[in-house]
Amino acid sequence: MSRPSYEETVGFHGHSCPGLAIGYRMTTVALDALGASRADDEELAAIVENDACGVDAVQFVAGCTFGKGNLVFLDYGKPVYTFFSRTTGRGVRVLGHRRGMPEGLRDDRARCTDWLLHAPKEDVVSWREVRIEPPPMARLHGSALCAACGERVMETRLREVGGRSLCTPCAEDTRDD
Amino acid sequence: MSRPSYEETVGFHGHSCPGLAIGYRMTTVALDALGASRADDEELAAIVENDACGVDAVQFVAGCTFGKGNLVFLDYGKPVYTFFSRTTGRGVRVLGHRRGMPEGLRDDRARCTDWLLHAPKEDVVSWREVRIEPPPMARLHGSALCAACGERVMETRLREVGGRSLCTPCAEDTRDD
Repeated sequence: MSRPSYEETVGFHGHSCPGLAIGYRMTTVALDALGASRADDEELAAIVENDACGVDAVQFVAGCTFGKGNLVFLDYGKPVYTFFSRTTGRGVRVLGHRRGMPEGLRDDRARCTDWLLHAPKEDVVSWREVRIEPPPMARLHGSALCAACGERVMETRLREVGGRSLCTPCAEDTRDD
Repeated sequence: MSRPSYEETVGFHGHSCPGLAIGYRMTTVALDALGASRADDEELAAIVENDACGVDAVQFVAGCTFGKGNLVFLDYGKPVYTFFSRTTGRGVRVLGHRRGMPEGLRDDRARCTDWLLHAPKEDVVSWREVRIEPPPMARLHGSALCAACGERVMETRLREVGGRSLCTPCAEDTRDD
């Protein structure tokens, strides 16, 4: 997949909004700084410091996805993503801001989004190279059956309760019906 | 966006694999059971009990994405997704399995993937309606500046340290350089 457009990214996220727009700019600035293209596997990893709309741009544009394990979430509530290339060992930290935003745009979501998409990158993103440890790779584990419900469970998530190996919901007896 | 094909879902995930294939079947079975289409906003929510490849099918096909806040992760290590429609109040729990898989396919990833995609749905997924509480909606919070680094932080993530309001990395002094 070549680099997705913002419109294609909206198709994934479901709607256009300022959060997705700033996430799109942050991600493209980071990929440009690293000279990287979208990750088919785990060539790139992203550490995201919030779980807001813009992270869908990280997933869609950089290929750092929740299901692939190369998206690491730190619940810091900060507009910061750090991208790491396993190919080159280089990392870049991008911070989204709106320092150059004209007065009066903040309360107009459509105009704000448009400005975020087209402003000079220095007006919306700060970035710098960083040295970080490579995030751990996704791991596969074996599985076994829960002794209560009989459903399959990853071995590392089984709990020993009264001599039986149970899945979390059975161990906590919180199953919905 | 109409329902994405498996090939389009592979474009998002980055590669085809058995995990993505079973996730695709689980998601499409659930959407059919609910009579639901892809969520542009939070009309649908998904509670996923693992963070493996198949969750990328949940994100791409159902529009329940990490960035939109309608993807809830429970770290149970189980091949289970529960989808909830805010429109109808109905929920469906889908369990992925391979009960009908012919002997010898398990170690052949390409043939296994192909079988998972084309087998009768009863051979790969079990499902039932469930009553659950609606998952909480995504919330927006105000932000403030960290007194140490000066970067913006969601107010609910600020920490008081020595009388100053700090972001998590500054509070823990774990910033990378």
